[in-house]
Amino acid sequence: MKKKQVSLKDIAKEVGVSIATVSYVLSKGKDSRVSDAMSEKIREVAKRLNYQPNIIAQSLKSGTTNTIGLILADISNPFFANLARVIEDEAAKYNYTVIFGSSDEKATKSKQLIDFLSSRQVDGFIIAPSEGSEDQIHALQQQGIPVVLIDRFFPNISTDYVIIDNYESSYRVVAELIRSGHRRIGMLAYTDGLYHMQERIRGYQTVLSDNQLVEAPEWLGKISYTNGKKEIEAAIDSMLAGDKPIDSIFFATNTLAIHGLKYLGKLNKKVPDDIAVVSFDEGEAFDFYYCPLTHVRQPLEEMGKAAVQSLSNRIKNPKIPQQAICLSAEVVVRKSSSTTTSK
Amino acid sequence: MKKKQVSLKDIAKEVGVSIATVSYVLSKGKDSRVSDAMSEKIREVAKRLNYQPNIIAQSLKSGTTNTIGLILADISNPFFANLARVIEDEAAKYNYTVIFGSSDEKATKSKQLIDFLSSRQVDGFIIAPSEGSEDQIHALQQQGIPVVLIDRFFPNISTDYVIIDNYESSYRVVAELIRSGHRRIGMLAYTDGLYHMQERIRGYQTVLSDNQLVEAPEWLGKISYTNGKKEIEAAIDSMLAGDKPIDSIFFATNTLAIHGLKYLGKLNKKVPDDIAVVSFDEGEAFDFYYCPLTHVRQPLEEMGKAAVQSLSNRIKNPKIPQQAICLSAEVVVRKSSSTTTSK
Repeated sequence: MKKKQVSLKDIAKEVGVSIATVSYVLSKGKDSRVSDAMSEKIREVAKRLNYQPNIIAQSLKSGTTNTIGLILADISNPFFANLARVIEDEAAKYNYTVIFGSSDEKATKSKQLIDFLSSRQVDGFIIAPSEGSEDQIHALQQQGIPVVLIDRFFPNISTDYVIIDNYESSYRVVAELIRSGHRRIGMLAYTDGLYHMQERIRGYQTVLSDNQLVEAPEWLGKISYTNGKKEIEAAIDSMLAGDKPIDSIFFATNTLAIHGLKYLGKLNKKVPDDIAVVSFDEGEAFDFYYCPLTHVRQPLEEMGKAAVQSLSNRIKNPKIPQQAICLSAEVVVRKSSSTTTSK
Repeated sequence: MKKKQVSLKDIAKEVGVSIATVSYVLSKGKDSRVSDAMSEKIREVAKRLNYQPNIIAQSLKSGTTNTIGLILADISNPFFANLARVIEDEAAKYNYTVIFGSSDEKATKSKQLIDFLSSRQVDGFIIAPSEGSEDQIHALQQQGIPVVLIDRFFPNISTDYVIIDNYESSYRVVAELIRSGHRRIGMLAYTDGLYHMQERIRGYQTVLSDNQLVEAPEWLGKISYTNGKKEIEAAIDSMLAGDKPIDSIFFATNTLAIHGLKYLGKLNKKVPDDIAVVSFDEGEAFDFYYCPLTHVRQPLEEMGKAAVQSLSNRIKNPKIPQQAICLSAEVVVRKSSSTTTSK
């Protein structure tokens, strides 16, 4: 059982002053109406009895808690872990504490987290929304709780959001493979219906058709979140086995790239000699990969900063117009997409 | 401004029944005292008006929120990000939602997070405590809030905790270098005063002295959290430049190993031919490193499971004796610590 919370009354009784005096000293600090010695004594007793101010009551009064709820897809994915870190650091500059949770790409889990945090008066949310969580975002807006979406957004809901240009980035990084002479280009993507993934697929398909490259059905491997590793291996097998075996591959996320590259290693396929590779994101995991990766570098710092600033603006003034921020990502060209003599 | 919360009264007015009836239907579900049609209508109106039950009031009544607060050191460190994921998955089995935050190894930040979450009735905490946060742990205990420490603990506070045997693991992994003929062994560690880091250093020093190897002062490089990368490079330079230049090195964490190995790469030192390497932890980053690493494999799954179970036991029965769980870690021997012909 929890011990009984120490109240202002307990402190007042112990010191032998009124509750009002205790409340005054503990909430306002120094004042001429109470002597320094008495203030000191009240604070000492409060500390000794381990008095915890009722923060909920205080925040209901002030209307703010200086706390942001951050809902990410999967904290064990370095992209989100690093984004969380950037947001924490940036939020600290605004004097916000960040509390976070991962939705695990599940709308039900996302709802639990949002319900818990919104009922506990976070000042606002930054959310990388999972598929099917439109209603939750909409409900927050209905309740007037500030929310900024990050990494993904819903085209049919008007919200503040910070994303990158997924279509454009995807188009440009695949164009790099074409520029260096590759013609049979596979893509590994996730099956989910989220807009950012659809945009990455659209970028890939458009650059292929713009270059008169006719995609074979097995070139686009769609992977589920739950059974990823096996499906990645099967998809790559099928891309390599068809009538038009791929000469290169585009990984739509860093997680797909890690598992995909490991599998290519198992198959003894050398990058870029046997197969060229480009990827969305990279990360520490690739620092030690033998072949430097051509990849889309997402501007994590800028994304995190823009999201915190956007949320802060919305908290201060809920009536400002919706702000849609689309940052452009850099395509970093390295060896993995280069031409090889064998083709 | 937030919109006014919809109350039971609003729903009662809209439907044309008493507040008691609305409260009854929304809290208890079906009952013969209210017709099915009326129950249905009340639920419809509640949904349409976007009624949010007052969760704080509800949880104050039940005394539980089924929510755990998790405080980690740094979420961008894969060790903690993966541990967080294991704890989330395990907690879900107990029907707990996990809310987390990173202390960034700072006691002040840790205090903000603990204060916010404890005043919001999380059922308990799992904490990887930062240096100087003893008082915070003690205060939680004083308030009767269940807490389990993980990864680190304070020998002078009696708490539930889950750690690994840092001294023993460190001793064993360095012994592997000695077994393969290395005699001048450096160590990179963090300067902080946390017990687990001291234990890792003690393991290294003891195995050296047990083997009559006399440590040169520059062999032990102590790195601060704030200026890590530069200090790592300076420490390695100094280990290689002294009278007794090292032939091998022990990295006390995965972060130290990543930066250290990158720097050895820059110096064109080949592992294990020019310098042998062992490490605490590893991670995805090392999957692509050219030389498989001999390392201490921390049992993340078991640590996370034990912590959640321990916390769940403590929440159910606050009076059970303190439970100290020390798991043993596996030393995985691979190529990086092997003997080379050149020595």
